[in-house]
Amino acid sequence: MDTILTSPTCTVRIGPGRPFVMIGERINPTGRRLLAEEMAAGNFDRVVADAIAQVAAGAQVLDVNAGIPLADEPAILAEAIRRVQQVVPVPLSIDSSVVDALAAGLQACRGKALVNSVTGEDARLEAVLPLVREYGAAVIGITNDDSGISEDPDERFRVAQKIIARAESFGIPREDVLIDPLTMPIGAVPTAGTSLFALVRRVRAELGVNTVCGASNVSFGLPDRAALNAAFLPMAIAAGLTAAITNPLQESLRKAILAADVFMGVDENCLAWLAAHRARAGA
Amino acid sequence: MDTILTSPTCTVRIGPGRPFVMIGERINPTGRRLLAEEMAAGNFDRVVADAIAQVAAGAQVLDVNAGIPLADEPAILAEAIRRVQQVVPVPLSIDSSVVDALAAGLQACRGKALVNSVTGEDARLEAVLPLVREYGAAVIGITNDDSGISEDPDERFRVAQKIIARAESFGIPREDVLIDPLTMPIGAVPTAGTSLFALVRRVRAELGVNTVCGASNVSFGLPDRAALNAAFLPMAIAAGLTAAITNPLQESLRKAILAADVFMGVDENCLAWLAAHRARAGA
Repeated sequence: MDTILTSPTCTVRIGPGRPFVMIGERINPTGRRLLAEEMAAGNFDRVVADAIAQVAAGAQVLDVNAGIPLADEPAILAEAIRRVQQVVPVPLSIDSSVVDALAAGLQACRGKALVNSVTGEDARLEAVLPLVREYGAAVIGITNDDSGISEDPDERFRVAQKIIARAESFGIPREDVLIDPLTMPIGAVPTAGTSLFALVRRVRAELGVNTVCGASNVSFGLPDRAALNAAFLPMAIAAGLTAAITNPLQESLRKAILAADVFMGVDENCLAWLAAHRARAGA
Repeated sequence: MDTILTSPTCTVRIGPGRPFVMIGERINPTGRRLLAEEMAAGNFDRVVADAIAQVAAGAQVLDVNAGIPLADEPAILAEAIRRVQQVVPVPLSIDSSVVDALAAGLQACRGKALVNSVTGEDARLEAVLPLVREYGAAVIGITNDDSGISEDPDERFRVAQKIIARAESFGIPREDVLIDPLTMPIGAVPTAGTSLFALVRRVRAELGVNTVCGASNVSFGLPDRAALNAAFLPMAIAAGLTAAITNPLQESLRKAILAADVFMGVDENCLAWLAAHRARAGA
C-alpha cells in the first residue's frame, strides 16, 4: 500500500517494495540562528539554496519548517513553501506544531503534501485531521499521546492504532497515514534500536501502513554520529521502514540508504547505486 | 544459546544478546600469490603479521586457511595454526575443504576451535562430523547439499535442518553448529539480501541456532564494495546474524559492526563504541 505525494510535476510513492524515500530536513530554523533571522526578515535566499542542494543530493521530498519564536509563522511558512516550489519539483512536507501555520502552508502548497505532524493527543487529532482531510493531504502520526512518550513499544503501537482509526473516522484513508515510531537517543535508551525495529515491523504486519522516522536523533550525545546514523538506517530499512526525515547532504547517510535499497532488492539492476557511483567518480 | 569457542587463555561466546563476532578472514592464500608461495616454502612471517593485525583491529576469532594447490595442506595448516597461536590469544576457525587438513588442524589447535566447514552433502557430513565430535569442536554448516546451492530459501532451510539433525546424531550439540545461510552476490541475485535476512531470522526462530556468513561476497562485481558491505552487515545483524567471516582491517566495516551492536542494545553504555572512537582520536 503506497502513500502517494505529489507536486504539480512529480509523484513520489512511499511503500514497501519501493526505493526508500529521503525527506530533506534542512529547511528548519530550529538551531539555525542565521536562517531564522533571514526567514523572519523575509529573506528566503538560504531556503531556496537549501531546497536546491537537498534535491540535487537525492531528497525526493522536502520538509519545510518556519518555527521561529515571536514571528508570524503561518505567513512565513506559506511564503517559504511558495519559494521552494518555484525552484524544485518535489512534493513537500509541511512541518509545524501550530495548526494555523499548517493551514496556511496547506493553502499555499500545490500538490498533495505531507502534514508533519499529528500526535495521538485528542486535541491535536481533532485540530489537525480535519485540515488533512480538507486538503487531501497525507499525515505523519507520531506515537505519543496525552500520557506522553512511552518507552513501552506496545503502548506506542496502541497510539499508532488510535491515530489510524481516528484518521479513518475523518475520511482519511490509512495509506495516507505514515506512522513515526519515535526515535529515542540510543545513548540514553539502550532499547531504542530494538524497540524501533520491532515497532516498524509490527506496524507494517498488523496495521499495513507505512512508517517514517527522524533519523538523526538516535545518535544524540555520542561521538561519530554520522557513522551511527549510517548503520541505524539500513537496520530500520531491513525492518520495513519506508521513509526518513534526514539530511541528504550527509554523504555517508545517502550511501547507506542507496546500499540498503540494493539489499532490499528495490534498486533494479543496482542502477541507482551505479549512477551514484558514476556521479561521485565524475565529480 | 551461545556457541562457545576457546583458546588456552580466551573464551568467545557467539549468540543473540552478545556483541557481534568478527572472524578475521585474512589468513587465506586464495588469491594472495605471495602469501601462498611463502606458506608453501615454510615462511609464516606474513601469517603471523596478519594474525596480529587482525586481532589488533578487533577480530575475536581468526580463520586459518592453507589451501595451496600441490602443497602439503595438512602440514602447512597445522604449522600455520601453531604459529598463530604463539602470537595471538584468540580462538581459531580451521578452514579447509580437505578432511585430512581439518584433522591435522584440529590436532594442532589448542582450545575449542570452529571447523569451517561442512555442507549438507551426505559424504561431507559423514567425513567431517566425526572429526568435530572427536575434538569437541564447533562447526559451520553451509546450506548447500548434493543438489547444489538452491536460490529457494525454503530449500536452504531444509539443508540447515538436515545438518543440525545429523550433527546431533553424531553427539554434537546444536549450539555447536553455526549455520551459514550463504551470501550470493546481490549484483547477480536481486533477492540475495532479502532471502538471507529471512533465512537468518527463520533459522534463529525455528532452529534456535546461531548464524555466520561470509560478508564480502555479497558486493561482488559492484563498485564501492566497502560501502555496500558496511550497510549489508547491520541489516543482517538486525535480522539476527551473530557472526561474520570478514576483513577487520576494513575500517568502515568495523565501524558498521560496532554501530550495529549499539543499536542491538548489546554494547552496554556504548562503551565499545566510545573506546573505538577514543582509539581513532588518539591514533
